[in-house]
Amino acid sequence: MDKLKGNLLYGQSGGPTSVINSSAYGVIKEALKNKDAIGEIYCMKHGIQGVLKDDLIKVSDLSFEDVELLVNTPGAAFGTIRYKMKEWEEDEKEYKRILEILKKYNIRYFLYNGGNDSMETCREVDEYLKKVGYDCRVIGIPKTIDNDLPVTDHCPGYGSAAKYIANACMEIACDSSAYPKGKVTIAEIMGRHTGWLTAASYVASASSFGPDLIYVPEVPFSIEKFKEDIKKVMTRKDHCLVAVSEGIQDGQGNFIAAASGTKDPFGHTQLGGVCHKLAAIVSDELGYSTRPCELSLLQRSAVHLQSKTDVDEAINVGRYAVRYALAGKTSVMVAMRRANIDAYRIVYFTVPLKDVAAVEKTLPRTMINPDGNYIQPEFLAYVLPLIDGHHKPQFRNGVMRFTTVMKP
Amino acid sequence: MDKLKGNLLYGQSGGPTSVINSSAYGVIKEALKNKDAIGEIYCMKHGIQGVLKDDLIKVSDLSFEDVELLVNTPGAAFGTIRYKMKEWEEDEKEYKRILEILKKYNIRYFLYNGGNDSMETCREVDEYLKKVGYDCRVIGIPKTIDNDLPVTDHCPGYGSAAKYIANACMEIACDSSAYPKGKVTIAEIMGRHTGWLTAASYVASASSFGPDLIYVPEVPFSIEKFKEDIKKVMTRKDHCLVAVSEGIQDGQGNFIAAASGTKDPFGHTQLGGVCHKLAAIVSDELGYSTRPCELSLLQRSAVHLQSKTDVDEAINVGRYAVRYALAGKTSVMVAMRRANIDAYRIVYFTVPLKDVAAVEKTLPRTMINPDGNYIQPEFLAYVLPLIDGHHKPQFRNGVMRFTTVMKP
Repeated sequence: MDKLKGNLLYGQSGGPTSVINSSAYGVIKEALKNKDAIGEIYCMKHGIQGVLKDDLIKVSDLSFEDVELLVNTPGAAFGTIRYKMKEWEEDEKEYKRILEILKKYNIRYFLYNGGNDSMETCREVDEYLKKVGYDCRVIGIPKTIDNDLPVTDHCPGYGSAAKYIANACMEIACDSSAYPKGKVTIAEIMGRHTGWLTAASYVASASSFGPDLIYVPEVPFSIEKFKEDIKKVMTRKDHCLVAVSEGIQDGQGNFIAAASGTKDPFGHTQLGGVCHKLAAIVSDELGYSTRPCELSLLQRSAVHLQSKTDVDEAINVGRYAVRYALAGKTSVMVAMRRANIDAYRIVYFTVPLKDVAAVEKTLPRTMINPDGNYIQPEFLAYVLPLIDGHHKPQFRNGVMRFTTVMKP
Repeated sequence: MDKLKGNLLYGQSGGPTSVINSSAYGVIKEALKNKDAIGEIYCMKHGIQGVLKDDLIKVSDLSFEDVELLVNTPGAAFGTIRYKMKEWEEDEKEYKRILEILKKYNIRYFLYNGGNDSMETCREVDEYLKKVGYDCRVIGIPKTIDNDLPVTDHCPGYGSAAKYIANACMEIACDSSAYPKGKVTIAEIMGRHTGWLTAASYVASASSFGPDLIYVPEVPFSIEKFKEDIKKVMTRKDHCLVAVSEGIQDGQGNFIAAASGTKDPFGHTQLGGVCHKLAAIVSDELGYSTRPCELSLLQRSAVHLQSKTDVDEAINVGRYAVRYALAGKTSVMVAMRRANIDAYRIVYFTVPLKDVAAVEKTLPRTMINPDGNYIQPEFLAYVLPLIDGHHKPQFRNGVMRFTTVMKP
């Protein structure tokens, strides 16, 4: 098939990961190798908002160093957004605007880098462009520390976040057990609906320096049961380290942390603070000294502790997105599966956007212990290859160097 | 002078740092080189409590690997404690017990590794031993991320904490500016009475990826002024990153965060949560979206992001403590000063315990801007050498390896 000639538009969407800019790097590098088909590379400023506002960054305007440093930069170098568009059948206005901009810049390759909600945006755009007969290849590039996209074995961003969580929990375990007095330390880990991130703390436990109790959203959380669990640990040893997902819920689907009740544009309850809530319960009702500890933003932005496997795969999904687009694929997301061999090796493939958009993959119940307060050893076989290899950070004068595409 | 023959006792006290175990390593290695004077090396379990409870660890019982891995292990490998002994003139009981244990194990070298309060303990023990005529060299080894010990140019533990804070703030700056909507992110940094740690966030600002506002305890904090500061930043740019010491106080010496009013054994108010308090003010009174972010325990336990300079110096203060003791010094703390040359080089010396015990060194007012909401460039000359060099963490299967002297 003849290659479709035109320009490429790349956008970042949803929560940052420490490797989303590595995917941007992969896209740019691969596109630059295909100048016969792809003329200019544009990046949306703040995802789809950059299209709607005609606010794009031309890669040819960037310095060589700014492109190279993408691999070392956290956040979303081109800006990201959580923006829920209406379905095109319901309200065509924004889609007309997108079409106008795509035409203006002769965009024939539309690559969107995000999680479940972003794949939904991607799918809607693709459907609309098909409807109006505008020839454009639409490819989703997976990204989410939550690791909750279906079909793909895992998501770029997860490996580095998991590595950070495992190592941070080991360090917290050492720190919080340094004092003789019994203390309950509660580490709060991201994960709105799935426990993939919190489960990574089990890697620390498997190394003898990790949580004694691990709670994930997949199992309904009972405060009474939690108190019993704590008491059991504290009769056995002097300290207790708890790892808990921000998104733990009671049996009725109510978030344990839901105090404020504020919602994001996708209708998700804004979370945070479950460690403080549980610490207050332990302190007031059980009388133990407590230390709440939110792992917070570093989970998704610690480029200083990236998994090399994750960085490499993030670059690769970007590269493959361009390759698949050039090969004529559209309306798909790049996905990964493990080759059926002993050693860990990833095979890239595509999955229709409709099969991944707005679908969440949860932690299998078999990876959680029957009691619902710990992770099973079989999880290690899944996660260890993903956190392997150390992507060495680049320091100058003691601090890292970042791309200056969009300075804070 | 003839070397005093006997055994050595080493203890860790106060809050952990990421390099206190490197000082332990330095002590052990240097002591092992001097077998003509030092027979056995004992380590207190949980500092002075280990003496009172006759609970010591014999270094010759440890594996070679457990000693080597001390340099890579956070927390306090032999256990630490915050325990305030009465002055010996007031109550001799515990001092008698200490003397009994020192005699039992023929301890002639007493090395205590800690901050201001620990140096006070050290000084009291030394005074008592002198009074009863027990020949024992008492040496303090500095350690505190707070960097608030006087006389010494800086304290082991500070460089690594400062490096972590600077880099973490850069990552947080990238992450929190990734979205288009204006958000105020408030990073809470340790530091009860001094702003050395929070000032380290200025290194990130100097790299263009750091806080817009920096508040330290040395300057009285006004909530009204704070709100004006935020408004000014937010009219100029879309985002605002604030770095704030946990210990900021109003003009009357009341902690801004002091809600609970609980106190530690030294009578210090237990802090935490100032970022949540300020975020609520910004959100409720100014209407901006906010993100509180406590850097929490990782500041003092992130061995995965240590300053090589700091690790080397931490080992050295341990080594020098042994050397000074062998040379007949007692009742002193090891201190560091910069050699008066262009390149950074540290000279070790001793300072009488009475000159450092319970004295706090604050951030000079000249290093803070006149407005009291930012740091001056001259701070860089002080801090940059301290965060220099990357102490490479040792990973196996994606996680670090720690000593198992005392497993959590």
